[in-house]
Amino acid sequence: MTGSTSDYVFQQVTIIGVGLLGGSLGLVLKERGVAKTVVGIGRRRSNLELAVQLGAIDHFASEPKDAIRDSDFIVLATPVDTYDSQVQDWGQSVPSGAIVSDVGSVKGQLVFDIEAALPSNAYFVGAHPIAGKEKSGVAHATSTLFDGARCIVTPTPHTNAKALAKVRGVWEKAGSEVVSMDPMVHDWVLGAVSHLPHIAAFSLMHALQDLQAQTPEALNLLGFSGGGLRDTTRIAASSPEMWRDICLANRENLVKMIDQYIIRLHAFKQLLNDQDGAGLAHTIEQAKTLREGLP
Amino acid sequence: MTGSTSDYVFQQVTIIGVGLLGGSLGLVLKERGVAKTVVGIGRRRSNLELAVQLGAIDHFASEPKDAIRDSDFIVLATPVDTYDSQVQDWGQSVPSGAIVSDVGSVKGQLVFDIEAALPSNAYFVGAHPIAGKEKSGVAHATSTLFDGARCIVTPTPHTNAKALAKVRGVWEKAGSEVVSMDPMVHDWVLGAVSHLPHIAAFSLMHALQDLQAQTPEALNLLGFSGGGLRDTTRIAASSPEMWRDICLANRENLVKMIDQYIIRLHAFKQLLNDQDGAGLAHTIEQAKTLREGLP
Repeated sequence: MTGSTSDYVFQQVTIIGVGLLGGSLGLVLKERGVAKTVVGIGRRRSNLELAVQLGAIDHFASEPKDAIRDSDFIVLATPVDTYDSQVQDWGQSVPSGAIVSDVGSVKGQLVFDIEAALPSNAYFVGAHPIAGKEKSGVAHATSTLFDGARCIVTPTPHTNAKALAKVRGVWEKAGSEVVSMDPMVHDWVLGAVSHLPHIAAFSLMHALQDLQAQTPEALNLLGFSGGGLRDTTRIAASSPEMWRDICLANRENLVKMIDQYIIRLHAFKQLLNDQDGAGLAHTIEQAKTLREGLP
Repeated sequence: MTGSTSDYVFQQVTIIGVGLLGGSLGLVLKERGVAKTVVGIGRRRSNLELAVQLGAIDHFASEPKDAIRDSDFIVLATPVDTYDSQVQDWGQSVPSGAIVSDVGSVKGQLVFDIEAALPSNAYFVGAHPIAGKEKSGVAHATSTLFDGARCIVTPTPHTNAKALAKVRGVWEKAGSEVVSMDPMVHDWVLGAVSHLPHIAAFSLMHALQDLQAQTPEALNLLGFSGGGLRDTTRIAASSPEMWRDICLANRENLVKMIDQYIIRLHAFKQLLNDQDGAGLAHTIEQAKTLREGLP
């Protein structure tokens, strides 16, 4: 796509971390004429070269500062545990009027920390595109990754309205349904509907490993599993590094949520111990109704 | 299929409970020439008439005793909590040399109880075809339901070898892979790979309901759920009556298994409280490896 400089929303975008999400965003920005130039920042040269070949970025650098100095949109697409050191490194190089955003799965305090670390004339808008991540790496990047997905933007009382509108516009161009949410509420919501189910699945795999150790004879317990267990634990096969970071960043909510889950498991156990058939039927019926109400 | 009387494995089969499983077994027995005549027993006349139309049974009765008196194979396909009253009702009508079997998801003590309630010259062989049950009712019955599925038979020290071979033969004709297992081991194995995951999914839905009640603003928590939660809780939308019965019948194993699961959830919570990044990465990596090892 070509156009005069003034047709672009952004003249130069810097994407820090060109993996599945960063690369897919680059493709959106380029293919849909949102950005004139996209610069990729990363550690592995081979990955950045692939990103250029795929059209996700125009060129690349290993050091972010120079690219950032000439950019009007900077997107953090590295793991959330790197945010602090990233912003320490190049935060003060963000030019006046530029917008900084991210694509991380955790928000909360991180958003306020980044806001505080940027120059007062730069703008931060947190964003979390809820897009499939079973495969990682720029090789799987596609400009349709965000089509029909939800993207949560997390403005704070300090967020600049024009910057927020521009970031919303990027994700609408990407085909996403954009929803706005307080950063702390975001982490509570995602903790419940995404992080807790992951922990439930991780822990179920571990419990089954323990039960295998208690199984008589040379019987391979998991060999008898079917589609039910496979579905229930599909998300247990997620990236350990990414989920370590999410769990650490959202640990305060997650500790409470695990406790709530344990309360419900104890309640179910009590029904079993009481041989309470009516109670069991009622509680399973409730679960069924809740499950059938999912979008 | 037609043939002389001597070509059939069984002259008259009585199926008690003509739903998805009983009906599908009837279709297998008729279509694949295993039984000359199949009699259906049930409470609802309309259901039995449908079963005749579908070819799952030849004719039907509401009272089992008469049909059973002339049968050489009797299959219990009613919920497991009815086994006791069923066998009280017609157990002494089972003719000499006849085989009684079932299709229930729980075995354990039930198998020994049925054995004890039958005349000494009749044979019991427990069977559990592990077949999909998302839709119920004879209307969804099909002779291919058991194709490629596993069927666990649960002989005891009292099981007659010829009767066991005949029951295995029925399920092999149905296209299933037949595995033999002690009735108590069966309940332990199924408790782990099927019942515990169901309880995990039921309780997760309940915990999310509790978290919804703690959510600020008029925010619909479950409205933000995606494919992860949907997969993890798919089995929560199972039949409450069936799962009440399974949970009650296998409650001693399940109480231990829920405890083991809770131990693992506590351990995960401890890693969060300790902010133990290396421990979290290690434990998630383990879960991923276990999940990827599922058949």
